[in-house]
Amino acid sequence: MNGKVFLVGAGPGDPELLTIKALRTLQSADAVLHDDLVSPEILALIPASAEVRNVGKRCGRKNITQEEINALLVAFASFGLKVVRLKSGDPLIFGRAGEEMQALRKAGIDFEVVPGVTSALASAAAARISLTHRESASAVLFVTGHHAKATKNVEWRRYVASAATLAIYMPGSDYQQISEQLIVAGLEAETACAIVSRASSPTQQIHRTTLKNLKGSPSLPAPTLLLVGEALSAADVVPSGLDAALGMLQSVHPNSLPSVPHFSNNDQVFLGD
Amino acid sequence: MNGKVFLVGAGPGDPELLTIKALRTLQSADAVLHDDLVSPEILALIPASAEVRNVGKRCGRKNITQEEINALLVAFASFGLKVVRLKSGDPLIFGRAGEEMQALRKAGIDFEVVPGVTSALASAAAARISLTHRESASAVLFVTGHHAKATKNVEWRRYVASAATLAIYMPGSDYQQISEQLIVAGLEAETACAIVSRASSPTQQIHRTTLKNLKGSPSLPAPTLLLVGEALSAADVVPSGLDAALGMLQSVHPNSLPSVPHFSNNDQVFLGD
Repeated sequence: MNGKVFLVGAGPGDPELLTIKALRTLQSADAVLHDDLVSPEILALIPASAEVRNVGKRCGRKNITQEEINALLVAFASFGLKVVRLKSGDPLIFGRAGEEMQALRKAGIDFEVVPGVTSALASAAAARISLTHRESASAVLFVTGHHAKATKNVEWRRYVASAATLAIYMPGSDYQQISEQLIVAGLEAETACAIVSRASSPTQQIHRTTLKNLKGSPSLPAPTLLLVGEALSAADVVPSGLDAALGMLQSVHPNSLPSVPHFSNNDQVFLGD
Repeated sequence: MNGKVFLVGAGPGDPELLTIKALRTLQSADAVLHDDLVSPEILALIPASAEVRNVGKRCGRKNITQEEINALLVAFASFGLKVVRLKSGDPLIFGRAGEEMQALRKAGIDFEVVPGVTSALASAAAARISLTHRESASAVLFVTGHHAKATKNVEWRRYVASAATLAIYMPGSDYQQISEQLIVAGLEAETACAIVSRASSPTQQIHRTTLKNLKGSPSLPAPTLLLVGEALSAADVVPSGLDAALGMLQSVHPNSLPSVPHFSNNDQVFLGD
């Protein structure tokens, strides 16, 4: 009898931002195939009895193809195992889950998707920025900057023309380039933006600036996310550096659930320009 | 001494899709101000000692203004309470959190945001649809159809021109109107779409169709979410009605965490047109 595959969102990094369902699914897994970006604290929650494979394409196993990952999922499930495909953030955003689900359907393997907190929302939460605003921002666009060089100006123009708040995943570290692309695409040089590095992790950093000044920003450790748009200006009304820093430091952690570690929020806060 | 306000995402409805942090925060709250859409199963997790207010603007308290909600948050926190502002989905998407955070900043009240699983991602998970695809969909746009009549054709045209998968929150039940608006805005009549009603709840329903046939769709109970785009076509490659129905029914629920109820997935599945 076939097993089942669970495509599970691991959230942004803090194990406390796993959903209860994700935690339960992970703790009863026979096999786990995970991306590089899943945090060590979350990997520590996998039972010792489970077969664990890092199928991340960045480090270590550069040559693993999507087809090989699909084949592994099918093979493990065919052995009757409960298989967790663990992806950082949410599995259905920029994760190739579509291809994996297609392979599972073709192989007749049952599967289920457990949604998660995607990085854009975790980053906005960390920076305490609403992504929408009744008056200035009625839509949010999630896009990758990963292939920023490959992304044509015409595409950036379409994204910018939507007038949505932009949540740019994997913006890379060439801030000058992405800043220029967005200005060429039609955004004002004064548009507010924020780089959020390692949202929800102990080493989280937030750098707020404007498109014009983005090029002078410090190069923050990946994964980063770039938020851009007028909605971000609203968040600037009152905050002082002290206020923001205190807000991050005064996190309360009562009644921690058993066996779930959580980060202290001793993150660094930059307030830019 | 002032208390603190936590803007917390309650997720789509299933208590198991709360994050661990949201559950912990809720279970230690002194006061909870929640929206109408937060499910009864989640409200049942609030300690009996907490002051609970429904500040939803839909039913019951039609006349409560955003200013009054802001004032309540400030007042409760000024009494030194740990206040949870509980919003369905994620707090920073279409939730007026920006205005609440601004009021808290002005009043000098400390606050923190706990992100959640937003409805678009829960709906995509329920329908097992990837919102992005390497070849056909490199962006996702979150927008509300709430004021579909007020939303101008020029806005829909901009959204459609982004070529992103559209996740339309609160699309209303006038499917003919929204279908026409999207086609006028430039989408092909054959574009795949799905209405997801009450994602993750025991009464979840999914109706898959095309823009052209959307007007003949059954009127499903709110809250609903409308997904539109080419990325949805990929999900159609193999599934039969039986396969999809079995996938939804064969959910495994081992090792349930104490005190957290979870829904069985006895949802109805429509496979449209």
